[in-house]
Amino acid sequence: MKHLLIPALLFSSVCGAQTTNPAKYVKPIIGTQRMGHTYPGATVPFGMVQLSPDTDTISYEQNGKYNPDVYKYCAGYQYDDKTIVGFSHTHFSGTGHSDLGDFLIMPTVGDLKLNPGTADKPRSGFRSAFSHANEVAEADYYKVKLDDYNITAELTATNRVGVHQYTFPKSDNAHIILDLMSGIYNYEDKNVWTFVRVENDTLITGYRQTNGWARTRTVYFAMTFSKPFIRYGNQNFSKRQVYRGFWGKFNQSKNFPEMAGKQLRAYFDFNTAEGEKIKIKFALSPVSTEGALANLRAEAPGWDFDKIRQQGQALWNKELSKVSIEADEEEKVNFYTSMYHAFITPTVYMDADGSYKGLDQRNHKATGFTNYTTFSLWDTYRALHPLFNILQPKRNSDMVQSMLAHYDQSLLHMLPVWSHYANDNWCMSGYHSVAVIADAVVKGNANFDTRKALNACVTTARNKSYEGIGEYIATGYIPAEKIGTSASTTLEYAYDDWAIAQMAKKLGRPDIYNEFIKRSTNYRNVFDPSVGFMRARMANGTFKDKFDPLSTANQGFIEGNSWNFSFFVPQDPADLIKLMGGNNRFVEHLDSLFTMELPDKYFEETEDITRDGIIGNYVHGNEPSHHVAYLYNWTNQPWKTQERIRMILKKQYHTGPDGLGGNDDCGQMSAWYIFSTLGFYPVAPASDEYAIGSPAINKATLKLENGKTFVIDVQNQSEKNVYVQKIELNGKVLPSLFLKHDAIMKGGKLVFYMGDKPVK
Amino acid sequence: MKHLLIPALLFSSVCGAQTTNPAKYVKPIIGTQRMGHTYPGATVPFGMVQLSPDTDTISYEQNGKYNPDVYKYCAGYQYDDKTIVGFSHTHFSGTGHSDLGDFLIMPTVGDLKLNPGTADKPRSGFRSAFSHANEVAEADYYKVKLDDYNITAELTATNRVGVHQYTFPKSDNAHIILDLMSGIYNYEDKNVWTFVRVENDTLITGYRQTNGWARTRTVYFAMTFSKPFIRYGNQNFSKRQVYRGFWGKFNQSKNFPEMAGKQLRAYFDFNTAEGEKIKIKFALSPVSTEGALANLRAEAPGWDFDKIRQQGQALWNKELSKVSIEADEEEKVNFYTSMYHAFITPTVYMDADGSYKGLDQRNHKATGFTNYTTFSLWDTYRALHPLFNILQPKRNSDMVQSMLAHYDQSLLHMLPVWSHYANDNWCMSGYHSVAVIADAVVKGNANFDTRKALNACVTTARNKSYEGIGEYIATGYIPAEKIGTSASTTLEYAYDDWAIAQMAKKLGRPDIYNEFIKRSTNYRNVFDPSVGFMRARMANGTFKDKFDPLSTANQGFIEGNSWNFSFFVPQDPADLIKLMGGNNRFVEHLDSLFTMELPDKYFEETEDITRDGIIGNYVHGNEPSHHVAYLYNWTNQPWKTQERIRMILKKQYHTGPDGLGGNDDCGQMSAWYIFSTLGFYPVAPASDEYAIGSPAINKATLKLENGKTFVIDVQNQSEKNVYVQKIELNGKVLPSLFLKHDAIMKGGKLVFYMGDKPVK
Repeated sequence: MKHLLIPALLFSSVCGAQTTNPAKYVKPIIGTQRMGHTYPGATVPFGMVQLSPDTDTISYEQNGKYNPDVYKYCAGYQYDDKTIVGFSHTHFSGTGHSDLGDFLIMPTVGDLKLNPGTADKPRSGFRSAFSHANEVAEADYYKVKLDDYNITAELTATNRVGVHQYTFPKSDNAHIILDLMSGIYNYEDKNVWTFVRVENDTLITGYRQTNGWARTRTVYFAMTFSKPFIRYGNQNFSKRQVYRGFWGKFNQSKNFPEMAGKQLRAYFDFNTAEGEKIKIKFALSPVSTEGALANLRAEAPGWDFDKIRQQGQALWNKELSKVSIEADEEEKVNFYTSMYHAFITPTVYMDADGSYKGLDQRNHKATGFTNYTTFSLWDTYRALHPLFNILQPKRNSDMVQSMLAHYDQSLLHMLPVWSHYANDNWCMSGYHSVAVIADAVVKGNANFDTRKALNACVTTARNKSYEGIGEYIATGYIPAEKIGTSASTTLEYAYDDWAIAQMAKKLGRPDIYNEFIKRSTNYRNVFDPSVGFMRARMANGTFKDKFDPLSTANQGFIEGNSWNFSFFVPQDPADLIKLMGGNNRFVEHLDSLFTMELPDKYFEETEDITRDGIIGNYVHGNEPSHHVAYLYNWTNQPWKTQERIRMILKKQYHTGPDGLGGNDDCGQMSAWYIFSTLGFYPVAPASDEYAIGSPAINKATLKLENGKTFVIDVQNQSEKNVYVQKIELNGKVLPSLFLKHDAIMKGGKLVFYMGDKPVK
Repeated sequence: MKHLLIPALLFSSVCGAQTTNPAKYVKPIIGTQRMGHTYPGATVPFGMVQLSPDTDTISYEQNGKYNPDVYKYCAGYQYDDKTIVGFSHTHFSGTGHSDLGDFLIMPTVGDLKLNPGTADKPRSGFRSAFSHANEVAEADYYKVKLDDYNITAELTATNRVGVHQYTFPKSDNAHIILDLMSGIYNYEDKNVWTFVRVENDTLITGYRQTNGWARTRTVYFAMTFSKPFIRYGNQNFSKRQVYRGFWGKFNQSKNFPEMAGKQLRAYFDFNTAEGEKIKIKFALSPVSTEGALANLRAEAPGWDFDKIRQQGQALWNKELSKVSIEADEEEKVNFYTSMYHAFITPTVYMDADGSYKGLDQRNHKATGFTNYTTFSLWDTYRALHPLFNILQPKRNSDMVQSMLAHYDQSLLHMLPVWSHYANDNWCMSGYHSVAVIADAVVKGNANFDTRKALNACVTTARNKSYEGIGEYIATGYIPAEKIGTSASTTLEYAYDDWAIAQMAKKLGRPDIYNEFIKRSTNYRNVFDPSVGFMRARMANGTFKDKFDPLSTANQGFIEGNSWNFSFFVPQDPADLIKLMGGNNRFVEHLDSLFTMELPDKYFEETEDITRDGIIGNYVHGNEPSHHVAYLYNWTNQPWKTQERIRMILKKQYHTGPDGLGGNDDCGQMSAWYIFSTLGFYPVAPASDEYAIGSPAINKATLKLENGKTFVIDVQNQSEKNVYVQKIELNGKVLPSLFLKHDAIMKGGKLVFYMGDKPVK
């Protein structure tokens, strides 16, 4: 299904000239249907607040068992849903596991309902029907009509403040609900504690503590109304409330300003005139309610909703203008929406004054850098952070500093694996923060203490108690008996080790280089020449039995099968080709990945792998194969990279709500799109080279933070002309299908000459 | 049962001269049997840490219902128990409801057990048998042999640091358990969250959040060992732990330094030589782990256990030396133990740098005063705070400042009712903080903003949404339909209102004086002349039916019957006498209170009223009648006050573990003892007069903070000579049986001449 292209019209009032208003091409609705797991709501670039509608509040458990439907709601919103439960302030963008959904706000009129109700029973609770016809989603702006109440909801945000504007009908029974129970990946015990103070008739403060994917997480808030409420109250839905004691002296449910409990929903009542707007500013803080109040005052003075929206959209234009492209309108929507999705995560995680709560649950102050959180590193080390090294070098360097601060606070002496809100959830495998750090160092974007950074990488990689590292160091691979993902984790460690070696080389530490370059060849230890695939191996050296290269279950690979993972030697494709029997056999094998048909049964094995994201047996919807189409560059048939990249771009990205074939994964899918559309890709982050693909636009101008400009001029490009005939860098023919990072950062011009026939 | 007097021997090494070592008379074991609810452990005066053995960890619930046995364990220790579960760091002294019991430590040897086991099955868990023969309890020192492990445990404390010294047998399997689940008035959901970091092999930090009697309470800690442990671990006893996710990468139960959860017990392993001492310093903070660490460093450098103990005992001697008495040894034990119990609560509630967490859960800094918590005001306004106005004026003034800070943080605009750890649990009735504040103002001990204080009192007393105040203001009493304690609460409000009036008078606010002096006569509205008792009254003006002046159930009185509560007009006994039919009928009635026999059935109605604390129908074990024996002073038979006071002193206080006939209630019972023993009592706090009783010692010298000395010389006093014949103040005969506060504070000499016959 294709979604109508409407944003351009809506933005016309904001800014006229196309080049200065790329935000008008941003369509946040892309990826909100099925697998993309993006959200349509409002956020500024890398903003702490992600204010977005939640269309359901699925429980993590159903009848005491994991409820698989919860996976759909990682971002809180599914396009096919007919109702909106409310608008909450924190969301992951594109993840395959989730958390957050803090502080859900819902405006209603009529009889007060404090239960959300269920989707199958409209009007059973405070949720409201809505229609996409009455929905607008732009960069930092979201609007929807809540049909059940005839309320128009509008959302925008600053970095730390969500701003709501609700246009009410005439009512003497209007409510704004603050739901402290609602959450994403929710379950009954997830709320550890919530605390609310009604400071006066327009100001509420408080916090919510959860034990979810983040084990120990607290978010503080300050909420202010544009108009005083006339009464308020709350209901405590906890099943158990002992020790009520003398609290019964008060009617705690009505106009009682000191609320606390595990399961609270509060409401605030108003009389409204027809068309009256009630606005809310909702500030967050990782540290304290005072911090939230200070953030509120610093970022969102006054009540001019449109001004705040314009400021937010100007921030987007600033970021998106870093790349101006010449392409058709549809392509621009894809491109700028990809940039939008790439520039959401990691998110700022500190108050306006730099304060944040660390892994140790103590308050810290970020000095000299902006502290970020939400590092989905198994995904984002691949293309997102490399993209940042080109387009967001300052932020990427700050992100590394944030990771090093996390390391300092870690008693496990580990860099983050998958971290958010001062926690590590340890999701997925590898220690890919080292790849992010090494890539920054190798590319000369290391505005941090590199000695300390190298030490943090090495210490992390030597932690023998972490997921088979001990065995990996001892025997060169992780035995299958040790962990379920022994083969893929061995492959990932080997790549990460290579990244450490590159960093060590750059920093003049041959001792460390030697140690880790040796470890980086460990992929060889899980290659089974008898089958020609990577394969889980037992402690005694034999390979694991019942081998099925197509299965993702119990084969020793994480979210992938051996067929895909066998290509995971990004650090040395040449050696992989040798291992696999040389150029011809490798090409044949690589071809088969794209051309074979994966039998149905394999799709039921892994949540993150669906038909949406698959081409043959090539899984684009999940990360492990993101570099694979570029591997033809190491063979004698690089033109196959070119045609496959264009094919993937076409098949896996479009402008409908289902426009993403897999989880966007905090921007990794989008970063792949941006690189590939520009014509090159970082196959092995921590290398200073990009592999050339096939650019899919006519021209792109990169305005770099260092003041330089890098122009990519694509001659004769079309849907058919996908084959690179010749490339010139600053007027000189590029001698190979590889581009140096330095060439980009120095500024200059790269000219692609395209044709409809491969250069064989 | 009488307990052997042993402390004097143990103290001999500390200090020789009797006058400078009153601490040797302190016997913390008094009150630990049955109803006293005191604890035998270590604390300094008003110390933040109360480190004491817990003999059981009774659950609040049994088969889903309230477990009445839990009441016995308000202080964690019951003298008749045979086992000790461990040593925890926070305890209320003498309360009738409870909380706390944070951070239980238990040393063991042999197989590791992480369940406490049960008292009826010795060796079923980590608890140990002990015997009183091997137990020493002194001011700031506790020692016991843990028989099951042959470990000698010794405890002492600074203000914010608990110090443990465990003498082990030889063992290669010694453990120190840190139990984060254990607590007082415990139940499964009480722990909201606990968080532990093993910073290195001698330092642990963390916090515990509970939802108990204090709704939202967090205590932070820093724990350090004198010797590195060789390994450590923990067990998570939570029934539900979802979202374990990728945490399974670690063995979280062994040597895993980042623990968190709702139900954790951690352990630390050692090898010990025969007789080896392992010491622990355990610092608390209401604010942060850094705060706890700073407290640790500030208060307890080094590892000299005996020095810390000596310093703590010196602090006690400093406080106890404020009154030196001449009396027999038994009397000295009673007296100094009473002073000890009176000088425990309220407790310091701030870090060494003045930081504390407020009612708003924000961090505050106490500027210019020491912040205190644990205000059991229904009890302590009567005699404890008046005692402080004589012996601890600086602290009492700081306590008022702490109450005013609480008021500032209260969105209900209420002074504390029963507050602890930045919470109000609203226990009992009245708004007696106003009596504490008024008493301080009237007595000229108002080193705080009196205008603000008066405003806080008035605002509290005008809060119409609080426990019937609205109706009380409107109709002059609280209708019985409104609350279950309508009669006694009306009486208490009327007294409190009188206290506000006195303060207003002193501060020159006739408007407020007039308003509240009028309210102070409201006791008349619940007096039923047809029965001659105070009686619950319905909204329509009729009195509640089924009147039983002896019953404490459903009669409209809190923890007391009408017979006792009918005497509760401390602000105007003369008017009460009139109301009750004049001098003769009143005396007769008052006599009956002491001489009648209360039928058995009435003892089952109220936890706080037991045979231990009753003389006739006079309930000394609970507070409402504490002033009653002094009321004869307003009749023509004041000598009956004298004989009854001596009788109560004799019957209700002795030096055995069961030496207190009722809950000490944060020192109120002890303060009654001190006043009465010295010969006078504050019948109506906020009056500047004390009613004379019958001094029970031969001489007392009060060394006041203002440098003055007040001597009470009691001539011819003996067990028989309880009747006051004459009193001279500074050589002049005291014209009445009332003593002015000022007379004490100016210093001087009060001479009692006693005889064996009443002066009629």
